[in-house]
Amino acid sequence: MREVAEAAGVSVATVSLVVNNKPDARIGADARQRVHDAIRALGYRPNALAKNLVSGGSRFIGLVTDAIATTPFAGQIIHGAQDEAWKHGYILLIANIEGNEEAEREAISMMLEHQVRGVLYSTWYHRAAAVPAPLRETDVVLVNCYSPAGDVRAVVPAEVQGGRTATELLLREGHRRIAIINTTTPSPAHDGRLRGYREALEAAGVAYDPALVFNAQPDQSGGYDVVEHLLAQGPTGVFCHNDRVAMGLYDGLRERGLSIPEDLAVVGFDNQEVIAAHLRPPLTTVALPHYELGAAGVRVLLGVEDAPGDGRVEVACPAVVRSSVGPAQGKGAVPRAVGLRRS
Amino acid sequence: MREVAEAAGVSVATVSLVVNNKPDARIGADARQRVHDAIRALGYRPNALAKNLVSGGSRFIGLVTDAIATTPFAGQIIHGAQDEAWKHGYILLIANIEGNEEAEREAISMMLEHQVRGVLYSTWYHRAAAVPAPLRETDVVLVNCYSPAGDVRAVVPAEVQGGRTATELLLREGHRRIAIINTTTPSPAHDGRLRGYREALEAAGVAYDPALVFNAQPDQSGGYDVVEHLLAQGPTGVFCHNDRVAMGLYDGLRERGLSIPEDLAVVGFDNQEVIAAHLRPPLTTVALPHYELGAAGVRVLLGVEDAPGDGRVEVACPAVVRSSVGPAQGKGAVPRAVGLRRS
Repeated sequence: MREVAEAAGVSVATVSLVVNNKPDARIGADARQRVHDAIRALGYRPNALAKNLVSGGSRFIGLVTDAIATTPFAGQIIHGAQDEAWKHGYILLIANIEGNEEAEREAISMMLEHQVRGVLYSTWYHRAAAVPAPLRETDVVLVNCYSPAGDVRAVVPAEVQGGRTATELLLREGHRRIAIINTTTPSPAHDGRLRGYREALEAAGVAYDPALVFNAQPDQSGGYDVVEHLLAQGPTGVFCHNDRVAMGLYDGLRERGLSIPEDLAVVGFDNQEVIAAHLRPPLTTVALPHYELGAAGVRVLLGVEDAPGDGRVEVACPAVVRSSVGPAQGKGAVPRAVGLRRS
Repeated sequence: MREVAEAAGVSVATVSLVVNNKPDARIGADARQRVHDAIRALGYRPNALAKNLVSGGSRFIGLVTDAIATTPFAGQIIHGAQDEAWKHGYILLIANIEGNEEAEREAISMMLEHQVRGVLYSTWYHRAAAVPAPLRETDVVLVNCYSPAGDVRAVVPAEVQGGRTATELLLREGHRRIAIINTTTPSPAHDGRLRGYREALEAAGVAYDPALVFNAQPDQSGGYDVVEHLLAQGPTGVFCHNDRVAMGLYDGLRERGLSIPEDLAVVGFDNQEVIAAHLRPPLTTVALPHYELGAAGVRVLLGVEDAPGDGRVEVACPAVVRSSVGPAQGKGAVPRAVGLRRS
């Protein structure tokens, strides 16, 4: 701006007034022309912020995240948010922070200074999050995380419903002895999916058996290592905390000459892009609705969708049926059922 | 800014001069104080752009990408770029475009208007890219892609070296009958890795046999579907275009009762986070150096690292040795070798 002012022989303030196209500015046509000529000659670009200050906001929505852009797990949150933002004329600008608090402060500060329409604050797995204080200066919606105080609007996956849906995929095929391989990590996913599992069993009149509840590392090694203990309890179906656990379970079962779904029906969770559809047999699972979480976050931010009274929007986790669940019949299920009938 | 001017009883131009803290501005101490008071009272934030205009640049580097933030494949490009940017006091701002050209124009325009230090333009797989014209107005470095005209600096994976390294992992264990399952997709990866394979064979004195070159869809189904044809050629080792292909190959071999590495040694490519370390046996592979691509992109952009004369920086693809390659011995390899000796 200083260069333009020098080239045009006017003050920086005059350049600012011309660029902002203020109708009430008392600037002669000649000076105005010289500023425009200088801008063109110097390749100067219009001042976005000045425009924002006039119009009261920019065309950008910020997304501040711990690691969604860098982990292979939740990228569809970004996809959903940017598609929805674009529908309403906004562009998503992303800052992926990876625990660098100073970078987070700077990125948020930049977004606020440039008057983004609002900010989505999002995490790569569903958890409690401390909302950075400066974000309270703008519209903020949490996505895939929540403020324990419940004072910020949040869009999260419906973990309990997801756990119920996963269990129902097994119940509806006649399974009654259903195990759950949960995660060792305390989290909304751990608690919610277990609760959903118990609710589904209860609704089907199947007694809850703690011996069928396992906790394992939430990856392939967890599913692989638990096989022996799992089989010792004689389940006919198993609900895995995530698709990675199911992948490890597949390997463990195969090594013992067991077939899916004939010997054991398997349900995953996540519908993880690189895995779920590509296991043999393809994995029946429950999807984490990442795309919808991002899209709903933008809708709540823009006021297109209302958050309920408690500010918490739960997005459903839908069933994705493939080939790893078959009917409960044959040796696995029947002897147990007969035993329970005191025959 | 208009609100501040009204509250302080001064012109917008005066507010601009005060905010920019211009030492040569002729503004009374009283007016200056009123502006500062109004700014505080209204919760106005310092004008980042005005500051940029004074200092000649912002603390941000832009990353414009097709889909790195949303696919599960190349997120570490972002990780490497942001770590390196931060080392030099910059923050990475990401626009993930997904083919939306209008959004791309807007995001780039915003970055230029806000005087980012420069822009990385990056793709989720290695390919030729058309550089958006407005990016020529700033410093730009291509990452994981290149301009066919060769007129823009580019940081790309060393595909030929990667193919050579993958093949050498098999050669050094005594394998001589080595197959390659390449991709059906024309790409730098297809051409480069095949060339590396041929170079490694030649250096080892092993004749190139076109019957050992297969093309398959670059995912699990491709690796699974090619098994029969592959085995008919009697290889003792196979270099797969990527880890997903290797995963499908694992399934196909297991169904035939064959063991890895005893019956067939397998090498992947990518070192894909969700898969490579988690197959059974864990997959020996060659890593796509995504983190290093992003970091090198920032170094070239900032002038910390020079691009060679042709503007093309190749980043090495290192071997990641796990358990899917064993020595070439036993029935697979020997009869062929004997046959070649005309015994």
